[in-house]
Amino acid sequence: MTRTLYDLAGKDPAMRFSPFCWRIKIALRHKGLDFDTIPWRFTEKDVIARTGQGRVPVLVDDERWVHDSWQIALYLDESYPDRPPLMRGAAERAMARFVSSWCDQTLHPILRSTFLLAIYDAAADKDRAYFRESREKLFGAKLEKLAMERSAGLKALVQALQPAEATLNVSRWLAGDEPSYTDYCLFGSLQWGRVLSREPIVSPDSAVGRWFERVLDLFDGYGRQAHIVSSETAHRSAV
Amino acid sequence: MTRTLYDLAGKDPAMRFSPFCWRIKIALRHKGLDFDTIPWRFTEKDVIARTGQGRVPVLVDDERWVHDSWQIALYLDESYPDRPPLMRGAAERAMARFVSSWCDQTLHPILRSTFLLAIYDAAADKDRAYFRESREKLFGAKLEKLAMERSAGLKALVQALQPAEATLNVSRWLAGDEPSYTDYCLFGSLQWGRVLSREPIVSPDSAVGRWFERVLDLFDGYGRQAHIVSSETAHRSAV
Repeated sequence: MTRTLYDLAGKDPAMRFSPFCWRIKIALRHKGLDFDTIPWRFTEKDVIARTGQGRVPVLVDDERWVHDSWQIALYLDESYPDRPPLMRGAAERAMARFVSSWCDQTLHPILRSTFLLAIYDAAADKDRAYFRESREKLFGAKLEKLAMERSAGLKALVQALQPAEATLNVSRWLAGDEPSYTDYCLFGSLQWGRVLSREPIVSPDSAVGRWFERVLDLFDGYGRQAHIVSSETAHRSAV
Repeated sequence: MTRTLYDLAGKDPAMRFSPFCWRIKIALRHKGLDFDTIPWRFTEKDVIARTGQGRVPVLVDDERWVHDSWQIALYLDESYPDRPPLMRGAAERAMARFVSSWCDQTLHPILRSTFLLAIYDAAADKDRAYFRESREKLFGAKLEKLAMERSAGLKALVQALQPAEATLNVSRWLAGDEPSYTDYCLFGSLQWGRVLSREPIVSPDSAVGRWFERVLDLFDGYGRQAHIVSSETAHRSAV
Protein backbone atom coordinates (compact mmCIF):
# COMPACT_ATOMS: atom_id res chain seq x y z
CA MET A 1 0.00 0.00 0.00
CA THR A 2 1.27 3.45 -0.92
CA ARG A 3 0.18 6.84 0.35
CA THR A 4 1.15 9.92 -1.64
CA LEU A 5 0.30 13.58 -1.39
CA TYR A 6 0.49 15.99 -4.30
CA ASP A 7 2.16 18.98 -2.70
CA LEU A 8 2.61 22.41 -4.30
CA ALA A 9 6.32 23.02 -5.02
CA GLY A 10 8.38 25.88 -6.38
CA LYS A 11 11.18 26.07 -8.93
CA ASP A 12 13.25 24.38 -6.23
CA PRO A 13 11.30 21.14 -5.65
CA ALA A 14 12.20 21.32 -1.95
CA MET A 15 10.29 24.60 -1.65
CA ARG A 16 6.78 23.74 -0.39
CA PHE A 17 4.55 26.68 0.44
CA SER A 18 0.86 25.79 0.14
CA PRO A 19 -0.95 26.44 3.45
CA PHE A 20 -3.54 23.78 2.58
CA CYS A 21 -0.87 21.16 1.89
CA TRP A 22 0.86 22.01 5.19
CA ARG A 23 -2.41 21.38 7.04
CA ILE A 24 -2.51 17.87 5.64
CA LYS A 25 1.20 17.03 5.91
CA ILE A 26 1.22 17.75 9.64
CA ALA A 27 -2.17 16.04 10.02
CA LEU A 28 -0.68 12.89 8.48
CA ARG A 29 2.19 13.10 10.99
CA HIS A 30 -0.36 13.52 13.81
CA LYS A 31 -2.10 10.33 12.66
CA GLY A 32 1.27 8.57 12.47
CA LEU A 33 0.70 7.67 8.83
CA ASP A 34 3.66 7.38 6.46
CA PHE A 35 3.42 9.19 3.16
CA ASP A 36 5.45 10.43 0.23
CA THR A 37 4.96 13.82 -1.32
CA ILE A 38 5.05 14.46 -5.05
CA PRO A 39 6.11 17.98 -5.99
CA TRP A 40 3.27 19.49 -8.02
CA ARG A 41 3.12 22.75 -9.95
CA PHE A 42 0.16 25.09 -10.49
CA THR A 43 0.02 24.18 -14.19
CA GLU A 44 0.00 20.38 -13.73
CA LYS A 45 -3.80 20.15 -13.77
CA ASP A 46 -3.71 16.94 -15.84
CA VAL A 47 -1.89 14.98 -13.12
CA ILE A 48 -4.79 15.46 -10.67
CA ALA A 49 -7.57 15.60 -13.30
CA ARG A 50 -9.31 12.53 -11.92
CA THR A 51 -10.31 14.54 -8.83
CA GLY A 52 -12.40 16.72 -11.15
CA GLN A 53 -10.68 19.92 -10.04
CA GLY A 54 -7.30 21.60 -10.26
CA ARG A 55 -5.93 22.28 -6.78
CA VAL A 56 -3.82 20.52 -4.19
CA PRO A 57 -3.60 18.92 -1.66
CA VAL A 58 -4.66 15.69 -3.30
CA LEU A 59 -4.13 12.51 -1.28
CA VAL A 60 -3.86 9.17 -3.01
CA ASP A 61 -4.36 6.58 -0.30
CA ASP A 62 -3.67 3.26 -1.98
CA GLU A 63 -6.47 3.34 -4.58
CA ARG A 64 -8.52 6.21 -3.17
CA TRP A 65 -8.13 9.80 -4.41
CA VAL A 66 -9.26 12.51 -1.97
CA HIS A 67 -9.00 16.26 -2.50
CA ASP A 68 -9.76 19.43 -0.49
CA SER A 69 -7.96 19.76 2.83
CA TRP A 70 -11.17 19.63 4.92
CA GLN A 71 -12.38 16.49 3.14
CA ILE A 72 -8.96 14.87 3.55
CA ALA A 73 -8.98 15.62 7.28
CA LEU A 74 -12.44 14.06 7.67
CA TYR A 75 -11.35 11.10 5.54
CA LEU A 76 -8.29 10.46 7.71
CA ASP A 77 -10.33 10.39 10.92
CA GLU A 78 -12.99 8.16 9.35
CA SER A 79 -10.56 5.76 7.71
CA TYR A 80 -8.10 5.47 10.60
CA PRO A 81 -10.22 5.50 13.77
CA ASP A 82 -7.53 3.55 15.64
CA ARG A 83 -5.02 6.37 15.12
CA PRO A 84 -4.94 9.63 17.17
CA PRO A 85 -8.00 11.65 16.13
CA LEU A 86 -7.47 14.96 14.38
CA MET A 87 -10.80 16.11 15.82
CA ARG A 88 -12.19 14.58 18.99
CA GLY A 89 -15.93 14.98 18.92
CA ALA A 90 -18.38 17.58 17.68
CA ALA A 91 -16.86 20.60 19.44
CA GLU A 92 -13.36 20.12 17.99
CA ARG A 93 -14.84 19.42 14.56
CA ALA A 94 -16.97 22.58 14.68
CA MET A 95 -14.01 24.66 15.81
CA ALA A 96 -11.76 23.26 13.07
CA ARG A 97 -14.38 24.16 10.48
CA PHE A 98 -14.71 27.66 11.89
CA VAL A 99 -10.98 28.30 12.11
CA SER A 100 -10.17 26.82 8.69
CA SER A 101 -12.74 29.11 7.10
CA TRP A 102 -11.48 32.07 9.15
CA CYS A 103 -7.90 31.40 7.96
CA ASP A 104 -9.05 31.32 4.33
CA GLN A 105 -11.12 34.46 4.66
CA THR A 106 -9.18 36.66 7.05
CA LEU A 107 -5.53 35.64 7.08
CA HIS A 108 -4.97 34.44 3.53
CA PRO A 109 -5.74 37.71 1.74
CA ILE A 110 -3.15 39.42 3.96
CA LEU A 111 -0.52 36.69 3.60
CA ARG A 112 -1.16 36.40 -0.14
CA SER A 113 -0.63 40.14 -0.64
CA THR A 114 2.40 40.28 1.63
CA PHE A 115 4.16 37.33 -0.02
CA LEU A 116 2.81 37.68 -3.54
CA LEU A 117 6.12 38.51 -5.16
CA ALA A 118 7.91 35.93 -3.05
CA ILE A 119 5.50 33.27 -4.34
CA TYR A 120 5.96 34.50 -7.90
CA ASP A 121 9.74 34.46 -7.54
CA ALA A 122 9.75 31.01 -5.94
CA ALA A 123 7.40 29.49 -8.52
CA ALA A 124 8.62 27.05 -11.17
CA ASP A 125 9.45 28.69 -14.50
CA LYS A 126 6.51 26.99 -16.20
CA ASP A 127 4.14 28.29 -13.48
CA ARG A 128 5.15 31.93 -13.47
CA ALA A 129 3.20 33.17 -16.50
CA TYR A 130 0.15 31.19 -15.30
CA PHE A 131 0.45 32.57 -11.79
CA ARG A 132 0.78 36.18 -12.95
CA GLU A 133 -2.02 35.93 -15.48
CA SER A 134 -4.54 34.10 -13.25
CA ARG A 135 -3.94 36.36 -10.21
CA GLU A 136 -3.94 39.59 -12.23
CA LYS A 137 -7.19 38.54 -13.89
CA LEU A 138 -8.77 37.50 -10.57
CA PHE A 139 -7.81 40.66 -8.68
CA GLY A 140 -7.81 43.11 -11.59
CA ALA A 141 -4.35 44.60 -11.12
CA LYS A 142 -0.64 43.94 -11.74
CA LEU A 143 1.11 41.65 -9.23
CA GLU A 144 3.45 44.48 -8.28
CA LYS A 145 0.43 46.65 -7.51
CA LEU A 146 -1.37 43.90 -5.55
CA ALA A 147 1.64 43.18 -3.34
CA MET A 148 1.43 44.67 0.14
CA GLU A 149 4.47 46.25 1.71
CA ARG A 150 5.94 43.76 4.19
CA SER A 151 5.71 45.82 7.37
CA ALA A 152 2.13 46.87 6.59
CA GLY A 153 1.25 43.24 5.84
CA LEU A 154 2.71 41.92 9.07
CA LYS A 155 0.98 44.68 11.04
CA ALA A 156 -2.35 43.72 9.45
CA LEU A 157 -1.57 40.08 10.30
CA VAL A 158 -1.11 40.85 14.00
CA GLN A 159 -4.47 42.62 14.02
CA ALA A 160 -6.19 39.79 12.16
CA LEU A 161 -4.72 37.17 14.52
CA GLN A 162 -6.47 38.74 17.53
CA PRO A 163 -9.02 35.91 18.06
CA ALA A 164 -6.17 33.35 18.04
CA GLU A 165 -4.13 35.53 20.41
CA ALA A 166 -7.10 35.80 22.83
CA THR A 167 -7.64 32.03 22.70
CA LEU A 168 -3.97 31.12 23.18
CA ASN A 169 -3.82 33.44 26.17
CA VAL A 170 -6.23 31.10 27.96
CA SER A 171 -5.50 27.76 26.25
CA ARG A 172 -2.29 25.90 25.38
CA TRP A 173 -3.67 24.70 22.02
CA LEU A 174 -6.32 26.30 19.87
CA ALA A 175 -9.04 23.75 20.62
CA GLY A 176 -8.07 22.94 24.19
CA ASP A 177 -5.45 20.87 25.97
CA GLU A 178 -4.09 18.83 23.05
CA PRO A 179 -3.00 19.69 19.50
CA SER A 180 -5.72 19.03 16.97
CA TYR A 181 -6.68 19.86 13.40
CA THR A 182 -7.68 23.42 14.41
CA ASP A 183 -4.01 24.03 15.25
CA TYR A 184 -2.88 22.59 11.93
CA CYS A 185 -5.17 24.93 10.01
CA LEU A 186 -3.63 28.06 11.50
CA PHE A 187 -0.20 26.43 11.40
CA GLY A 188 -0.53 25.94 7.63
CA SER A 189 -1.25 29.64 7.14
CA LEU A 190 1.69 30.82 9.22
CA GLN A 191 4.03 28.20 7.78
CA TRP A 192 3.17 29.53 4.31
CA GLY A 193 4.50 32.92 5.40
CA ARG A 194 7.41 31.38 7.30
CA VAL A 195 8.85 29.44 4.37
CA LEU A 196 8.58 32.51 2.14
CA SER A 197 10.34 34.81 4.60
CA ARG A 198 13.77 35.00 6.15
CA GLU A 199 12.42 36.91 9.14
CA PRO A 200 9.88 35.71 11.73
CA ILE A 201 6.37 36.72 10.69
CA VAL A 202 4.86 36.59 14.19
CA SER A 203 6.41 38.05 17.33
CA PRO A 204 8.03 35.47 19.65
CA ASP A 205 6.59 37.54 22.53
CA SER A 206 2.99 36.90 21.52
CA ALA A 207 0.84 33.95 22.56
CA VAL A 208 0.52 33.05 18.87
CA GLY A 209 4.30 33.24 18.44
CA ARG A 210 4.93 30.92 21.40
CA TRP A 211 2.24 28.50 20.16
CA PHE A 212 3.74 28.51 16.65
CA GLU A 213 7.10 27.42 18.10
CA ARG A 214 5.31 24.57 19.90
CA VAL A 215 3.70 23.41 16.65
CA LEU A 216 7.07 23.62 14.87
CA ASP A 217 8.45 21.28 17.56
CA LEU A 218 5.75 18.62 17.09
CA PHE A 219 6.59 15.27 15.49
CA ASP A 220 10.37 15.61 15.80
CA GLY A 221 10.33 19.18 14.50
CA TYR A 222 8.57 18.25 11.28
CA GLY A 223 7.42 21.78 10.46
CA ARG A 224 10.70 23.34 11.57
CA GLN A 225 12.68 21.31 9.03
CA ALA A 226 10.81 22.83 6.09
CA HIS A 227 12.94 24.38 3.38
CA ILE A 228 13.00 28.18 3.71
CA VAL A 229 13.20 30.54 0.77
CA SER A 230 16.78 31.49 -0.16
CA SER A 231 18.03 34.95 0.75
CA GLU A 232 18.20 36.04 -2.84
CA THR A 233 14.57 35.18 -3.56
CA ALA A 234 13.32 36.51 -0.24
CA HIS A 235 14.95 39.85 -0.84
CA ARG A 236 12.56 41.07 -3.47
CA SER A 237 9.51 40.50 -1.32
CA ALA A 238 11.07 42.32 1.60
CA VAL A 239 11.69 45.63 -0.16
CA MET B 1 -30.47 36.26 47.60
CA THR B 2 -30.85 38.64 44.68
CA ARG B 3 -29.25 38.47 41.26
CA THR B 4 -29.26 41.60 39.12
CA LEU B 5 -27.70 42.55 35.82
CA TYR B 6 -26.95 46.11 34.79
CA ASP B 7 -28.16 46.12 31.21
CA LEU B 8 -27.65 48.92 28.68
CA ALA B 9 -30.99 50.58 27.89
CA GLY B 10 -32.19 53.31 25.57
CA LYS B 11 -34.49 56.29 26.03
CA ASP B 12 -37.24 53.67 26.20
CA PRO B 13 -36.13 51.53 29.17
CA ALA B 14 -37.48 48.43 27.39
CA MET B 15 -34.98 48.96 24.57
CA ARG B 16 -31.94 46.76 25.34
CA PHE B 17 -29.30 46.62 22.64
CA SER B 18 -25.86 45.78 24.09
CA PRO B 19 -24.43 42.64 22.42
CA PHE B 20 -22.37 41.90 25.54
CA CYS B 21 -25.42 42.12 27.81
CA TRP B 22 -27.39 39.82 25.49
CA ARG B 23 -24.61 37.21 25.77
CA ILE B 24 -25.07 37.17 29.53
CA LYS B 25 -28.86 37.39 29.65
CA ILE B 26 -29.27 34.30 27.51
CA ALA B 27 -26.39 32.60 29.36
CA LEU B 28 -28.29 33.15 32.63
CA ARG B 29 -31.38 31.57 31.04
CA HIS B 30 -29.22 28.63 29.86
CA LYS B 31 -28.06 28.12 33.46
CA GLY B 32 -31.65 28.36 34.67
CA LEU B 33 -30.78 31.21 37.03
CA ASP B 34 -33.37 33.88 37.82
CA PHE B 35 -32.29 37.48 37.54
CA ASP B 36 -33.57 41.02 37.30
CA THR B 37 -32.16 43.56 34.93
CA ILE B 38 -31.57 47.18 35.83
CA PRO B 39 -31.72 49.57 32.87
CA TRP B 40 -28.37 51.36 32.72
CA ARG B 41 -27.27 54.27 30.56
CA PHE B 42 -23.83 55.00 29.07
CA THR B 43 -23.35 57.97 31.41
CA GLU B 44 -24.20 56.15 34.65
CA LYS B 45 -20.59 55.29 35.41
CA ASP B 46 -21.05 56.01 39.14
CA VAL B 47 -23.62 53.22 39.57
CA ILE B 48 -21.07 50.55 38.56
CA ALA B 49 -17.98 52.39 39.87
CA ARG B 50 -17.13 49.65 42.34
CA THR B 51 -16.17 47.37 39.43
CA GLY B 52 -13.36 49.83 38.65
CA GLN B 53 -14.50 50.36 35.07
CA GLY B 54 -17.38 51.90 33.18
CA ARG B 55 -19.06 49.31 30.98
CA VAL B 56 -21.84 46.76 31.24
CA PRO B 57 -22.76 43.93 31.65
CA VAL B 58 -22.19 43.99 35.38
CA LEU B 59 -23.65 41.11 37.36
CA VAL B 60 -24.37 41.50 41.06
CA ASP B 61 -24.82 38.00 42.39
CA ASP B 62 -25.96 38.45 45.97
CA GLU B 63 -22.87 40.21 47.32
CA ARG B 64 -20.47 39.57 44.45
CA TRP B 65 -19.91 42.09 41.65
CA VAL B 66 -18.60 40.64 38.38
CA HIS B 67 -17.98 42.56 35.14
CA ASP B 68 -16.85 41.74 31.59
CA SER B 69 -18.99 39.23 29.69
CA TRP B 70 -16.22 36.62 29.42
CA GLN B 71 -15.46 36.82 33.16
CA ILE B 72 -19.17 36.59 33.98
CA ALA B 73 -19.52 33.46 31.79
CA LEU B 74 -16.56 31.81 33.54
CA TYR B 75 -17.94 32.89 36.92
CA LEU B 76 -21.34 31.33 36.20
CA ASP B 77 -19.84 27.97 35.27
CA GLU B 78 -17.52 28.01 38.29
CA SER B 79 -20.14 29.13 40.78
CA TYR B 80 -22.99 26.93 39.54
CA PRO B 81 -21.38 23.62 38.53
CA ASP B 82 -24.66 21.78 39.17
CA ARG B 83 -26.41 23.83 36.48
CA PRO B 84 -26.09 23.17 32.70
CA PRO B 85 -22.55 24.22 31.71
CA LEU B 86 -22.13 27.14 29.32
CA MET B 87 -18.86 25.55 28.18
CA ARG B 88 -18.29 21.82 28.48
CA GLY B 89 -14.58 21.23 28.69
CA ALA B 90 -11.48 22.78 27.17
CA ALA B 91 -12.55 22.63 23.52
CA GLU B 92 -15.83 24.50 24.04
CA ARG B 93 -14.07 27.04 26.26
CA ALA B 94 -11.36 27.64 23.64
CA MET B 95 -13.93 28.01 20.90
CA ALA B 96 -16.02 30.44 22.95
CA ARG B 97 -12.93 32.57 23.54
CA PHE B 98 -12.07 32.51 19.85
CA VAL B 99 -15.57 33.34 18.66
CA SER B 100 -16.18 36.06 21.26
CA SER B 101 -12.98 37.79 20.18
CA TRP B 102 -13.87 37.30 16.50
CA CYS B 103 -17.30 38.89 17.09
CA ASP B 104 -15.69 41.90 18.78
CA GLN B 105 -13.07 42.32 16.10
CA THR B 106 -14.82 41.38 12.87
CA LEU B 107 -18.57 41.76 13.26
CA HIS B 108 -18.86 44.64 15.71
CA PRO B 109 -17.16 47.31 13.58
CA ILE B 110 -19.63 46.48 10.78
CA LEU B 111 -22.70 46.36 13.03
CA ARG B 112 -21.61 49.49 14.88
CA SER B 113 -21.26 51.45 11.62
CA THR B 114 -24.49 50.10 10.16
CA PHE B 115 -26.59 50.88 13.25
CA LEU B 116 -24.70 53.89 14.54
CA LEU B 117 -27.50 56.39 13.96
CA ALA B 118 -30.08 53.89 15.21
CA ILE B 119 -28.12 53.57 18.47
CA TYR B 120 -27.82 57.35 18.73
CA ASP B 121 -31.52 57.82 18.09
CA ALA B 122 -32.50 55.09 20.56
CA ALA B 123 -30.17 56.36 23.30
CA ALA B 124 -31.49 58.13 26.39
CA ASP B 125 -31.46 61.92 26.13
CA LYS B 126 -28.74 62.21 28.76
CA ASP B 127 -26.57 59.71 26.83
CA ARG B 128 -26.77 61.27 23.38
CA ALA B 129 -24.20 64.04 23.75
CA TYR B 130 -21.84 61.59 25.50
CA PHE B 131 -22.34 58.97 22.79
CA ARG B 132 -21.73 61.43 19.95
CA GLU B 133 -18.70 63.02 21.58
CA SER B 134 -16.98 59.78 22.69
CA ARG B 135 -17.50 58.00 19.34
CA GLU B 136 -16.53 61.00 17.23
CA LYS B 137 -13.38 61.43 19.30
CA LEU B 138 -12.54 57.69 19.12
CA PHE B 139 -13.06 57.36 15.38
CA GLY B 140 -12.13 60.90 14.33
CA ALA B 141 -15.23 61.78 12.31
CA LYS B 142 -18.86 62.89 12.64
CA LEU B 143 -21.39 60.14 13.47
CA GLU B 144 -23.19 60.83 10.19
CA LYS B 145 -19.93 60.28 8.34
CA LEU B 146 -19.05 57.10 10.29
CA ALA B 147 -22.43 55.49 9.63
CA MET B 148 -22.41 52.84 6.93
CA GLU B 149 -25.24 52.66 4.45
CA ARG B 150 -27.55 49.80 5.50
CA SER B 151 -27.32 47.64 2.38
CA ALA B 152 -23.53 47.98 2.24
CA GLY B 153 -23.34 47.13 5.95
CA LEU B 154 -25.49 44.03 5.64
CA LYS B 155 -23.50 42.89 2.60
CA ALA B 156 -20.27 43.27 4.57
CA LEU B 157 -21.91 41.34 7.42
CA VAL B 158 -22.72 38.35 5.16
CA GLN B 159 -19.11 38.29 4.02
CA ALA B 160 -17.76 38.55 7.57
CA LEU B 161 -20.08 35.76 8.78
CA GLN B 162 -18.48 33.25 6.40
CA PRO B 163 -16.69 31.19 9.12
CA ALA B 164 -19.98 30.85 11.04
CA GLU B 165 -21.82 29.94 7.83
CA ALA B 166 -19.25 27.24 7.03
CA THR B 167 -19.50 25.85 10.57
CA LEU B 168 -23.30 25.85 10.69
CA ASN B 169 -23.38 24.03 7.37
CA VAL B 170 -21.80 21.04 9.11
CA SER B 171 -22.98 21.50 12.72
CA ARG B 172 -26.36 22.30 14.31
CA TRP B 173 -24.81 24.61 16.92
CA LEU B 174 -21.58 26.58 16.72
CA ALA B 175 -19.61 24.39 19.10
CA GLY B 176 -21.23 21.05 18.27
CA ASP B 177 -24.46 19.23 19.06
CA GLU B 178 -25.78 21.42 21.87
CA PRO B 179 -26.17 25.18 22.39
CA SER B 180 -23.30 26.65 24.37
CA TYR B 181 -21.70 29.98 25.18
CA THR B 182 -20.13 30.16 21.70
CA ASP B 183 -23.66 30.41 20.29
CA TYR B 184 -24.59 33.12 22.77
CA CYS B 185 -21.60 35.23 21.75
CA LEU B 186 -22.64 35.37 18.10
CA PHE B 187 -26.30 35.59 19.12
CA GLY B 188 -25.55 38.76 21.12
CA SER B 189 -23.99 40.41 18.08
CA LEU B 190 -26.89 39.59 15.77
CA GLN B 191 -29.50 40.42 18.40
CA TRP B 192 -27.89 43.87 18.70
CA GLY B 193 -28.61 44.41 15.01
CA ARG B 194 -32.03 42.76 15.23
CA VAL B 195 -33.42 44.99 17.98
CA LEU B 196 -32.19 48.09 16.14
CA SER B 197 -33.75 47.07 12.82
CA ARG B 198 -37.26 46.47 11.56
CA GLU B 199 -35.97 44.18 8.81
CA PRO B 200 -34.11 40.85 9.20
CA ILE B 201 -30.37 41.44 9.19
CA VAL B 202 -29.43 37.89 8.12
CA SER B 203 -31.06 35.91 5.32
CA PRO B 204 -33.50 33.20 6.49
CA ASP B 205 -32.08 31.05 3.67
CA SER B 206 -28.58 30.98 5.15
CA ALA B 207 -27.28 28.49 7.71
CA VAL B 208 -26.64 31.43 10.05
CA GLY B 209 -30.20 32.69 9.52
CA ARG B 210 -31.70 29.29 10.35
CA TRP B 211 -29.45 28.94 13.40
CA PHE B 212 -30.40 32.45 14.59
CA GLU B 213 -34.08 31.45 14.54
CA ARG B 214 -33.21 28.38 16.64
CA VAL B 215 -31.45 30.57 19.22
CA LEU B 216 -34.41 32.98 19.28
CA ASP B 217 -36.62 29.97 20.12
CA LEU B 218 -34.50 28.83 23.09
CA PHE B 219 -35.80 29.23 26.66
CA ASP B 220 -39.42 29.88 25.68
CA GLY B 221 -38.46 32.34 22.98
CA TYR B 222 -36.49 34.56 25.37
CA GLY B 223 -34.51 36.36 22.65
CA ARG B 224 -37.52 36.63 20.35
CA GLN B 225 -39.49 38.60 22.93
CA ALA B 226 -36.96 41.42 23.01
CA HIS B 227 -38.30 44.89 22.40
CA ILE B 228 -37.59 46.01 18.82
CA VAL B 229 -36.88 49.58 17.84
CA SER B 230 -39.99 51.53 16.86
CA SER B 231 -40.63 52.24 13.18
CA GLU B 232 -40.04 55.92 13.61
CA THR B 233 -36.61 55.50 15.17
CA ALA B 234 -35.59 52.68 12.84
CA HIS B 235 -36.38 54.78 9.82
CA ARG B 236 -33.42 57.08 10.08
CA SER B 237 -30.90 54.24 10.15
CA ALA B 238 -32.49 52.55 7.17
CA VAL B 239 -32.22 55.45 4.75
